[in-house]
Amino acid sequence: MTRSWWGWGNVEETVAGAELGALLARVRMLAPGDLTGHEPPDIPALGLPAPRVSAPAALAGLCSADPADRAGHAHGKAFRDVVRNLHGDLRQVPDLVARPRRERDLVDLLDWCARDGIAAIAYGGGSSVVGGIEPRFDDDRAAVTIDLGRLDRVLEIDPVSRAARIQAGVFGPHLEDQLRPYGLTLRHFPQSFEFSTLGGWLATRAGGHYATLRTHIDDMVESMRVVTPSGTSESRRLPGSGAGPSPDRLFLGSEGTLGVITEAWMRLEERPRWRARASVHFADYAAAVRATRAIAQSGLHPANCRLLDTAEALINAGVAVEGGVLMLGFESADHPVSTSLDRAGELCRDQGGEIIAGEESAGDTWRSSFLRMPYQRDALARHSVIVETFETACTWDRFESLHHAVMQAAREAVRKVTGADGVVTCRFTHVYPDGPAPYFGVYAPGRWGSTVAQWDEIKAAVSEAIAHNGGTITHHHAVGRDHRPWYDVQRPDPFAAALTAAKAALDPAGILNPGVLLPPR
Amino acid sequence: MTRSWWGWGNVEETVAGAELGALLARVRMLAPGDLTGHEPPDIPALGLPAPRVSAPAALAGLCSADPADRAGHAHGKAFRDVVRNLHGDLRQVPDLVARPRRERDLVDLLDWCARDGIAAIAYGGGSSVVGGIEPRFDDDRAAVTIDLGRLDRVLEIDPVSRAARIQAGVFGPHLEDQLRPYGLTLRHFPQSFEFSTLGGWLATRAGGHYATLRTHIDDMVESMRVVTPSGTSESRRLPGSGAGPSPDRLFLGSEGTLGVITEAWMRLEERPRWRARASVHFADYAAAVRATRAIAQSGLHPANCRLLDTAEALINAGVAVEGGVLMLGFESADHPVSTSLDRAGELCRDQGGEIIAGEESAGDTWRSSFLRMPYQRDALARHSVIVETFETACTWDRFESLHHAVMQAAREAVRKVTGADGVVTCRFTHVYPDGPAPYFGVYAPGRWGSTVAQWDEIKAAVSEAIAHNGGTITHHHAVGRDHRPWYDVQRPDPFAAALTAAKAALDPAGILNPGVLLPPR
Repeated sequence: MTRSWWGWGNVEETVAGAELGALLARVRMLAPGDLTGHEPPDIPALGLPAPRVSAPAALAGLCSADPADRAGHAHGKAFRDVVRNLHGDLRQVPDLVARPRRERDLVDLLDWCARDGIAAIAYGGGSSVVGGIEPRFDDDRAAVTIDLGRLDRVLEIDPVSRAARIQAGVFGPHLEDQLRPYGLTLRHFPQSFEFSTLGGWLATRAGGHYATLRTHIDDMVESMRVVTPSGTSESRRLPGSGAGPSPDRLFLGSEGTLGVITEAWMRLEERPRWRARASVHFADYAAAVRATRAIAQSGLHPANCRLLDTAEALINAGVAVEGGVLMLGFESADHPVSTSLDRAGELCRDQGGEIIAGEESAGDTWRSSFLRMPYQRDALARHSVIVETFETACTWDRFESLHHAVMQAAREAVRKVTGADGVVTCRFTHVYPDGPAPYFGVYAPGRWGSTVAQWDEIKAAVSEAIAHNGGTITHHHAVGRDHRPWYDVQRPDPFAAALTAAKAALDPAGILNPGVLLPPR
Repeated sequence: MTRSWWGWGNVEETVAGAELGALLARVRMLAPGDLTGHEPPDIPALGLPAPRVSAPAALAGLCSADPADRAGHAHGKAFRDVVRNLHGDLRQVPDLVARPRRERDLVDLLDWCARDGIAAIAYGGGSSVVGGIEPRFDDDRAAVTIDLGRLDRVLEIDPVSRAARIQAGVFGPHLEDQLRPYGLTLRHFPQSFEFSTLGGWLATRAGGHYATLRTHIDDMVESMRVVTPSGTSESRRLPGSGAGPSPDRLFLGSEGTLGVITEAWMRLEERPRWRARASVHFADYAAAVRATRAIAQSGLHPANCRLLDTAEALINAGVAVEGGVLMLGFESADHPVSTSLDRAGELCRDQGGEIIAGEESAGDTWRSSFLRMPYQRDALARHSVIVETFETACTWDRFESLHHAVMQAAREAVRKVTGADGVVTCRFTHVYPDGPAPYFGVYAPGRWGSTVAQWDEIKAAVSEAIAHNGGTITHHHAVGRDHRPWYDVQRPDPFAAALTAAKAALDPAGILNPGVLLPPR
């Protein structure tokens, strides 16, 4: 398999042939427009500028100036990243890509960057959708992207406590491969699972498999090891502690601005043996939301509790319903879970839900579609379609107004920038006793050469709607550079002052991912 | 009811008469020594020094220089606090006790303290057992203790999301009283429940009712409002978020050093309707630990999962067993929980446990004893008995060695300082998939006039044993001033630098609870 430099995943899995034809035919119905295909540029045609720095001799062997490396590490994998790549719009690329083989190499790389004022961007799988790993600065400082891919091993397993010490650069599948012989799993499966790393999940507070309880990776962390320009921070392995503010919680979500995570002790579990799942159809969306809330507040703790609205159900699960489809799943390594599913079913019936007994095809369709989505997004991006997602979380009391405002803002913005109606969908990725995490999808016909600007305008409109209706600018996609304007408003000012001071203490030269979370210095 | 200035709780609930006689008789068997009783001094006899500062006119109405107020706010409620009070040893007392009526008053008080370099100590229920609210400094700076008791209201209830906006100074019972009409509860019941406040729980990351899942108050926080000398920080009400490092997690556990918590939106739940509980007897402690671990890793999420060792079971639950007693409880507002209890029972039988069907008396005895413990501790302190607890958490793989080392260190230290054997007990207060939170009790005959020094020597020995065996210096008792030496070692140095910088940004004059968590400036 060959990783695509410009788009999602592996080149060999690109949407093509009959799959592409069918996809375009579906899109033609939903969002008719000019669907001419465009090819990505060749790397030599990009004409990348020469690197502005060269590594000291001792570090030269770790660093690559190969244009394919530099182009492949220039952007994340958001729609706007892929489209800019398709246009050969790589205004800012890392000068070098460094691949430390061990922690000592990383310390030396950071020392060099601090000494010479070079920006250092920690890079895991590069699947950021928020400009989190892009060397985009207002000034012309040089940048070294530090790809942690060589730090990819499970170093230690504690089967009694069910935990493992794991290097940060390991990708999802390789991580699970190393745990499987022990019958254990981290069970963290974000959509990017195949193309993202443990360190990236931790640095961005990724959201994973579970719809309830352990939604973010945060709760699976026992301890972390973080290299900062001011020294290496290692917390003690503890199942729980109340000794001052949690050190780990400062680094979780720090997105490469406070240090580079090199290892973590992660909580594991046994692979599940019991599973139960069902789809529930609703004729009324408000009733579906009430049922989902009842389940979220029941203490039943479903592993999956994904409410798809009608558009989402139709497009991605192939189900036509009036109100929505709730996909429910329970699982356990210890005990049967059918009683829990039965009780959740009752809560759905209380709200008029129709349980589709034994019917798993909608869920299966949705799951395979889920993993195919980023590839389809790339194919559509090449055909001038605007395809992107955004997500938030809010309390239940505010969901109806937030949902209404966001859907309206998205539709109005789509109409304004494209002249067409497009499609806006909503699903819940995670649910909490006090609120859901809604995830929105936008599909609209764009204008080749303008789809980034068009999307940016839609994104600004929906972000304002989220901010004004009590949502968070991100539930699990992180802040990066693209969410900064809304994050800056959401974040309490005294906390911003504290975070700025903490960064100055850990990164006095201001080299770590400048512009992410905080203004660059 | 009248609060005791020198000891736990209410004067009217002091252990006396037949209860005292029986208690002393039991102690005489376990730890024979001189059991002469000593009376607490009268407040006038303390001869408190005159306050070194007086409040500006605008704040004078909020401030009290009453000796009873000042003496009552001088110490927390640890054994060493109570004994020092009994000896009239109040070397450092607050100059004034301030009681803000509203947040604006608090802002003004902090402004005054910052201007005049007066230490400001936020005070909730004053139940600290780690010197957390004591004006103990190396220099002679003046101190104002800010008692938040007037900020005691539930301001808003959101029954849809099940959350409430609550003022920080509310005590446990008054908080639950205000939630009860809505059928909701915070369900956070630390041992100090009656005499501690929401703000104190948040500032110290208190441990509460649940043995699993929501063990610390941290996980029940939706948002917090914190007044700092650099401005007021208020986070957005969110069920979950991934927008940078969590602002709330910086203030949780900050113990009054970064700001004063004035309000929080807290997650509530419906009052439980279904309950199931049982006691399980084990002939072998290691087997009991294995069974407890199996339950902690099962995903059954018991509300109670308290393993008492033989000494703890005998003294506080009145049960004589060879290995230990596991007290199990499940509860739910939504569904029956007997299946969960049955499965937990199976896991216990797998390890040789004997389920005492329908037998609840051990649990009941233990619970009433639990609430009586602090009063009994005071009675024993007056009779020269050393009675104190300490707690930690560690991963399961390390528990056996930690337990062995701590028990041995405690017994050796007791023997060294008292010449007698004393009694050391262990129970689990909370359990996690990756480890337990063991809680130890020490009972030994002391020497009147020396019991604080004797205890301090025992405490140092067990703290060393905890630190050397991978435990935390505190699971839920906080750091305060007394745990500083071991906290300083446990806390990663770069995180200490970040925390110091954050404090300097929020509290530039260094007035907030100097000496707690960090060295005073």
